[in-house]
Amino acid sequence: MKRTDLALEARELWREKDGQTALPPGVEGETRTEAGCTLETLRVRSKEGAETLGKPEGNYVTVFPEAFLRREEGAFEAAAALLGRELRALLGLTAGASVLVAGLGNEAITPDSLGPRTLRHVLATRHLVSALPETFGAFRKVAVMATGVLGNTGMESAELVRAAAEKLRPDAVIAVDALASRRLGRVCRTVQLTDTGIAPGSGVGNARRELSRETLGMPVVGLGVPTVVDAATLAADLTELSGRGEAAPEDFGEYGAGMMVTPREIDQQISLMARLLGYGIDLALHDLSCADVTALVG
Amino acid sequence: MKRTDLALEARELWREKDGQTALPPGVEGETRTEAGCTLETLRVRSKEGAETLGKPEGNYVTVFPEAFLRREEGAFEAAAALLGRELRALLGLTAGASVLVAGLGNEAITPDSLGPRTLRHVLATRHLVSALPETFGAFRKVAVMATGVLGNTGMESAELVRAAAEKLRPDAVIAVDALASRRLGRVCRTVQLTDTGIAPGSGVGNARRELSRETLGMPVVGLGVPTVVDAATLAADLTELSGRGEAAPEDFGEYGAGMMVTPREIDQQISLMARLLGYGIDLALHDLSCADVTALVG
Amino acid sequence: MKRTDLALEARELWREKDGQTALPPGVEGETRTEAGCTLETLRVRSKEGAETLGKPEGNYVTVFPEAFLRREEGAFEAAAALLGRELRALLGLTAGASVLVAGLGNEAITPDSLGPRTLRHVLATRHLVSALPETFGAFRKVAVMATGVLGNTGMESAELVRAAAEKLRPDAVIAVDALASRRLGRVCRTVQLTDTGIAPGSGVGNARRELSRETLGMPVVGLGVPTVVDAATLAADLTELSGRGEAAPEDFGEYGAGMMVTPREIDQQISLMARLLGYGIDLALHDLSCADVTALVG
Amino acid sequence: MKRTDLALEARELWREKDGQTALPPGVEGETRTEAGCTLETLRVRSKEGAETLGKPEGNYVTVFPEAFLRREEGAFEAAAALLGRELRALLGLTAGASVLVAGLGNEAITPDSLGPRTLRHVLATRHLVSALPETFGAFRKVAVMATGVLGNTGMESAELVRAAAEKLRPDAVIAVDALASRRLGRVCRTVQLTDTGIAPGSGVGNARRELSRETLGMPVVGLGVPTVVDAATLAADLTELSGRGEAAPEDFGEYGAGMMVTPREIDQQISLMARLLGYGIDLALHDLSCADVTALVG
Repeated sequence: MKRTDLALEARELWREKDGQTALPPGVEGETRTEAGCTLETLRVRSKEGAETLGKPEGNYVTVFPEAFLRREEGAFEAAAALLGRELRALLGLTAGASVLVAGLGNEAITPDSLGPRTLRHVLATRHLVSALPETFGAFRKVAVMATGVLGNTGMESAELVRAAAEKLRPDAVIAVDALASRRLGRVCRTVQLTDTGIAPGSGVGNARRELSRETLGMPVVGLGVPTVVDAATLAADLTELSGRGEAAPEDFGEYGAGMMVTPREIDQQISLMARLLGYGIDLALHDLSCADVTALVG
Repeated sequence: MKRTDLALEARELWREKDGQTALPPGVEGETRTEAGCTLETLRVRSKEGAETLGKPEGNYVTVFPEAFLRREEGAFEAAAALLGRELRALLGLTAGASVLVAGLGNEAITPDSLGPRTLRHVLATRHLVSALPETFGAFRKVAVMATGVLGNTGMESAELVRAAAEKLRPDAVIAVDALASRRLGRVCRTVQLTDTGIAPGSGVGNARRELSRETLGMPVVGLGVPTVVDAATLAADLTELSGRGEAAPEDFGEYGAGMMVTPREIDQQISLMARLLGYGIDLALHDLSCADVTALVG
Repeated sequence: MKRTDLALEARELWREKDGQTALPPGVEGETRTEAGCTLETLRVRSKEGAETLGKPEGNYVTVFPEAFLRREEGAFEAAAALLGRELRALLGLTAGASVLVAGLGNEAITPDSLGPRTLRHVLATRHLVSALPETFGAFRKVAVMATGVLGNTGMESAELVRAAAEKLRPDAVIAVDALASRRLGRVCRTVQLTDTGIAPGSGVGNARRELSRETLGMPVVGLGVPTVVDAATLAADLTELSGRGEAAPEDFGEYGAGMMVTPREIDQQISLMARLLGYGIDLALHDLSCADVTALVG
Repeated sequence: MKRTDLALEARELWREKDGQTALPPGVEGETRTEAGCTLETLRVRSKEGAETLGKPEGNYVTVFPEAFLRREEGAFEAAAALLGRELRALLGLTAGASVLVAGLGNEAITPDSLGPRTLRHVLATRHLVSALPETFGAFRKVAVMATGVLGNTGMESAELVRAAAEKLRPDAVIAVDALASRRLGRVCRTVQLTDTGIAPGSGVGNARRELSRETLGMPVVGLGVPTVVDAATLAADLTELSGRGEAAPEDFGEYGAGMMVTPREIDQQISLMARLLGYGIDLALHDLSCADVTALVG
């Protein structure tokens, strides 16, 4: 099966397979441009829609920060503010609400490092609000955690987030993770936000791994950027593109196993996207400007 | 007050102050050499002893791995095995017992990075024992976590360890942290093990910060290496050494505040000690040789 | 054109194209096993052979360190010693000869970091032999340099090596760089040594970039490990493997541009290979055991 | 001898020793404030002045970027522009002049990493100006090199810079290095620029180590920030401050040897100063704004 973590690509695969141009039943969506970005929204509204797309019911926003990627002046600030607004809308937080921000993935493996690298730009305020309420009373209480990865910790990321969430009792969780895409052209060039949470690795429906309202008992917004293409998925797509007929990742046998395709400049690109996501989170949770965040995060 | 995290130095300060050569009442101890190391053991046996030393009741083992520091052949393996035996004795684990290993401190600040760097050498086995009991049945279940630091996470290290401990219910906790010493000559040259746990930062008796049997409800062994000398403590000691009379850290006012004294080669020295501690933990928890650990941890 | 830096694969492509099973005219070779490794040697002996293979005249040794990759006990030491012997043979050094070891590539981009990471394990002895001839007289004088990359330095790697070589006047140069392969199965699993030097990037025949006896005026041995597969080369090979006929990288247009395919565990794999290469260099240049190198390099 | 790399402190020591309040004969100087910074200028104008201060004849500018250290809005941009102007004045470059920027020190040792970290923010343009003169014609040709350290490379930093300078023939060299101060309060809080170049380690007058117009045959500006206090120098100063009489570093014997005193937040502070220096260099060499540099350097 062609592997993707993007709802947008799930819809694309459905269209390719069925020769459709519309949306599946039970799925709504629209596209708009704002703040130098293109936003594609999908709302999976029924069980039928969820099954057709292979994605849980809920809202998916895909942001293409074009002006930022062209490095236009002021585009970073505009895109971060837009992400902040979209994130705030999905979280639906009240004024004094507290939030736990979890960064998933392995910092030592570049394409898997989006989560922990994003955290470098996220303000941890929980201890400040508690200790100095007069000074920091206007901030939301934010706790920040890097979950590490199963191979290094012996714990599923979701298990550790759940442990922290039960202890801290935040009003919502934001989970940041690297995603897989089927198109090289989307790698490090788009951001997905969804109120369906996140399923690290792949395991949709795997309760041990899933971070969602169902498993945590509070709103969970998943925030991610595609950083890799599965080698076999790429091969299948390229075969079709070169006019050699349909192909499935399985056709390429062991060749794709354990391999990933990334841009040469992946390290720098992930730094840029991690900064964008981190600032987006800060702007969603506090009344700050980008300049304020720079001064506070350093 | 002269700052130290070492029981050995607490005893030393007591001797200097009172002109004593023995041990305080309620404190026992002895020195021995083994496996190229000198071991100094202190047992604080009464409330009186604890008050005199300013250290909680319990056992303290200070290991000076001299042969290893001289880089003698085979000395690393011997010292790691010795640490493993001492750690196992303090933990008192049964065969199938599970353990949570927590690394405290900030990886980005060299002298504070001992905890997270030690974790690089600790085998996480919990998921393997669960998933492949036939293959990994002979291993203890070990989970591993880096706690981060309050300023970056908004959570006390102890809070996060407690959350994980409540979720995982291990039979014991090992907490690794960098310590402060009063003597430059001990920095990165000695290891302290204690079944009294650990009090990150300084806060002895601060329940929010303390990791101990009292706060976690299970055995907690603290494992640490001194990596810094407090600048004001150093100044006070140096003043006395140069024959200029007694001095207290406070005499040097703001000069020591926020400053630390470290060896020039601190980065490399911490790497060496982190590896020694990591291997010591692995040897304490599993029936492995150093060569096995190398093959498994990489 | 299918991109490869391995002479072995140039021969393979020639065989595939011409349906041959032998070697091209002017090329000799053989295969043997030793010290847990398979070695394939190619000797390009004539201009005709060089043109057929697209590789300069000279000797190419490809080492597959199978036992080391299976993590067998003692296999690292055996493979490092074998690399040392092969490297020494290609260098043809006399007893007091001095060597400049250059690590090419970008440390910040994982698959390009082989060169600088190898240097971490290479003993720099030039200053010691000069300052303390009684103690270090038995060592060869070795200087070590990381060249950085054009985008960061504004200088071609070869330019900087040439500048240092003109200043230091070593008897030989060893240049370490990451290579491109056409087969995923070879990535991080083989080492190429060649007395034809190295052509960073791709530019065979590009004197500004080439590091060879011709451009430096002294023996230059290139030492490399394939760390990436060009995405378009991969796609072309996979298309053929899946029975969809012949394909060229160009068929996949812009899709491969700026993309690379790597193993998921690339970071750890490069660490292992960098260590193997570094020790191999040390053993080639000095009368040391692996244990000695560990003690000296740390 | 109390160790300092700052001309300002050399003057201070002279005043303390001789009870003077003026400047030594042959030395001129003044203080001014500009762009949120305090600047102290010293001009050593005669051999007598040089001997009194123990600093070579030439110009020394010490910049205290107070507003930037208080993190005032716009203060980074103002301080970087000021550094750019001062640096440009010391370099005395003509329009098409080319420059080699050398970063000295060891990236793996935090307080010694100022040089290589500064380079991360310096635009390498030499290859771009050569390859695309229409697009980059307005830029000066800038080459950038990290010298590494003697223990890792076997080469003196100055040797390697000299090799590159002979090859590239730039019109001037900028050498960036971490400095030693005698006052904790100056660590990471001040920048020294001088047209006398730089003497890595300590060796004033040691031609093998010195980077200056005398040894390179072209203008050399040294740019540095104090990042450590020598432990024994600190002890001597603290002893005097605490009213215990005069003291010399030697009084503290082996205690200071191989030790350094740094702020706890040294890692973050060096990042900030390295960014300030890097931008200052870019602004000195090209007609750019800070926003331009951010877009180009990333």
